Amino acid sequence: MKAIDGGVCAPQGFQAAGIRCGIKGGSGKRDLALIYSKAPCTSAALYTTNQVKAASVLVSRQHTAQGQIRGLIANSGNANACTGEAGIAAARRMAELAGAALSIPREQMAVASTGVIGVPLPIQAIEAGIEAITKGLRSDAQGHEAALEAIMTTDTRKKAGALEIEIAGFPIRLGGMVKGSGMIHPNMGTMLCFITTDASISQELLDKALRRSVQRSFNRVTVDGDTSTNDMILIMANGEGHNPRIESPGPDYAVFAAALEALCISLARAVARDGEGATKLITVTVKEAVDEASAVVLAKSVASSNLVKAACFGADANWGRVLCALGYAGIDFDPQRVDVAFASAAGYVCLCKGGRDLPFCEEVAKQILLEDEIEIIITLGQGVAEAVVWGCDLSYEYVKINGDYRS
Amino acid sequence: MKAIDGGVCAPQGFQAAGIRCGIKGGSGKRDLALIYSKAPCTSAALYTTNQVKAASVLVSRQHTAQGQIRGLIANSGNANACTGEAGIAAARRMAELAGAALSIPREQMAVASTGVIGVPLPIQAIEAGIEAITKGLRSDAQGHEAALEAIMTTDTRKKAGALEIEIAGFPIRLGGMVKGSGMIHPNMGTMLCFITTDASISQELLDKALRRSVQRSFNRVTVDGDTSTNDMILIMANGEGHNPRIESPGPDYAVFAAALEALCISLARAVARDGEGATKLITVTVKEAVDEASAVVLAKSVASSNLVKAACFGADANWGRVLCALGYAGIDFDPQRVDVAFASAAGYVCLCKGGRDLPFCEEVAKQILLEDEIEIIITLGQGVAEAVVWGCDLSYEYVKINGDYRS
Repeated sequence: MKAIDGGVCAPQGFQAAGIRCGIKGGSGKRDLALIYSKAPCTSAALYTTNQVKAASVLVSRQHTAQGQIRGLIANSGNANACTGEAGIAAARRMAELAGAALSIPREQMAVASTGVIGVPLPIQAIEAGIEAITKGLRSDAQGHEAALEAIMTTDTRKKAGALEIEIAGFPIRLGGMVKGSGMIHPNMGTMLCFITTDASISQELLDKALRRSVQRSFNRVTVDGDTSTNDMILIMANGEGHNPRIESPGPDYAVFAAALEALCISLARAVARDGEGATKLITVTVKEAVDEASAVVLAKSVASSNLVKAACFGADANWGRVLCALGYAGIDFDPQRVDVAFASAAGYVCLCKGGRDLPFCEEVAKQILLEDEIEIIITLGQGVAEAVVWGCDLSYEYVKINGDYRS
Repeated sequence: MKAIDGGVCAPQGFQAAGIRCGIKGGSGKRDLALIYSKAPCTSAALYTTNQVKAASVLVSRQHTAQGQIRGLIANSGNANACTGEAGIAAARRMAELAGAALSIPREQMAVASTGVIGVPLPIQAIEAGIEAITKGLRSDAQGHEAALEAIMTTDTRKKAGALEIEIAGFPIRLGGMVKGSGMIHPNMGTMLCFITTDASISQELLDKALRRSVQRSFNRVTVDGDTSTNDMILIMANGEGHNPRIESPGPDYAVFAAALEALCISLARAVARDGEGATKLITVTVKEAVDEASAVVLAKSVASSNLVKAACFGADANWGRVLCALGYAGIDFDPQRVDVAFASAAGYVCLCKGGRDLPFCEEVAKQILLEDEIEIIITLGQGVAEAVVWGCDLSYEYVKINGDYRS
């Protein structure tokens, strides 16, 4: 498995483009993205669990049910959520416009939106831009970059990646881009993730691999506890890598699934690292738990705690807040068997042993917490299961961004 | 029912004191509080549901089980949590010292602590201060004020109140003080609430009235989603008002329970208003729900959303975040029947009708949200139940306070 360049354009046969069509107003920023496979695809997708779902989610869900998506059109600057029947019509129209321009059925297009909720989507802007974006499709890294820029909102970093693996002697590529934060706890900026691959794989196994990967990556990211109305992850596999089609869960499937999981984890970490206003990536590991599910719940409770997040921002080794967050997670454990340690590139320090304070050097702890990637390691002394969750700190900037997001 | 002065000293026969014994270091601030009834009491208490419980909680829970608490000793500056066997011994010693000084059994004393977790409690400071605080006991408003100051940590306002009611022709008083935030979602500053009354009431009914009142007041406050290791609410009733003892749930009980609920709601609102870094009190009302329990869950989801809280801080009428927070609360409802309105002393504006945007004047909405008490009113169109929850906004100051709480 090796990292390569090119993002969603790295796999054979995929093209991408991004333009400014005017949804973001006078900002001059790109706001319309297109990703397209020249060959037919199998596809799989997962959506937000929020009961309030964006029109784009409702329409894409219908289209992706058949597992044959080969194109995606996405806009930023407007979430097309809480926009009633007109919003549904606008989302359908987006798919229709792109499908017509690419000469494929509307049902083979997925649609995504991200931005402000409750404002009618200016579909005329997309109508006006459709010709330019279709003509702008490129199969190189520049196409990928343009599309990625066009789905960003409050993101401060470009979050993308691509991998090459070998399946039955054939080189196979996976590429992905993501914007926003988390899947279970994403911020309002919405998590959109689009993955392409030239692997040849059945729809059933593609779906299985995606679910498992999301479970162990995006579903373990938390930025601020707010699950968006628009979250979506889509994978398209066009078979242009010409490997013998993966039809059963044997070694080829295992190689593919492992690569997809690795790509998703790297994108998920990038999402946490780029959480709104974040200055640090926080990795919370819970070890020696009874089972993996309870380890995830406990780790998430710590990673979600505003008090833990603010302490990390201030490089304050306030380990009591970690114990406190474990205590209200709703999972049984013995507080008197818990150890807590902080680690980073600057070192490792254990601050709590058997649920109580351990003498430690404040200066060393501070140096560890001043790094921009911090680990909180919790040992429960109960069993052998463990889980990792990614989050970020809580800064002034988070409040600033969200205090006037619409302005 | 009328408001009176004097706080916990308003009821007949109660005394209070607060001194500086040195736990808070060189700050010069009071850090040790004592409340005491000259006559025996019936009592009731409720504690944090966090699995990690402070030593003071563990010890007080044993003592309050008999329902005969007539004194309370509390310190600020140290939570005495995650401090092992030494912490338990220190909490017992606090009760023992105060009991000896007041000539009452140790088991009739409750103990409370608030402050940093995981630092051994300097019990010598309390030993050294016990004589001074006992001698300082006063039955007037000054005694109440001194005790209240001694339990405050990051609190910026004094939160207390007292009421007078009439039971069977006898004037009866209730007085209370509270520090910190919330009971279900309190911040690390810990919620401590101490209530005194000179009503004569059975232990069973006192306990029943307290549970019901807490359910409808402190359990409906959220500041930051972090449930402390030290939360505690205690009520002591010494019967010095000489009403015929309330032994059954008739009209006298109803009057007493209503007064206790009113006092708890006023203290709970004060807690939300003084949430760490808060600039505004946010009241979330969910109407037309299927039942009260689901109305509470939905209202809490909105009041707990960092994005809703940051929008209120920025006076940004971003109602989409309200719908989003309802959507992930885990309660079934029809998004297409939801109305959302914002209100304050500056006016009322409905921004969302039937789950979608309603044209509204941004300037009017901004004026409404610039007030320091804001209401968010959500109508579900499902049933007839409703519930109110209190929270506060999320400001730069919250991050600042919690980024270096220990320093």
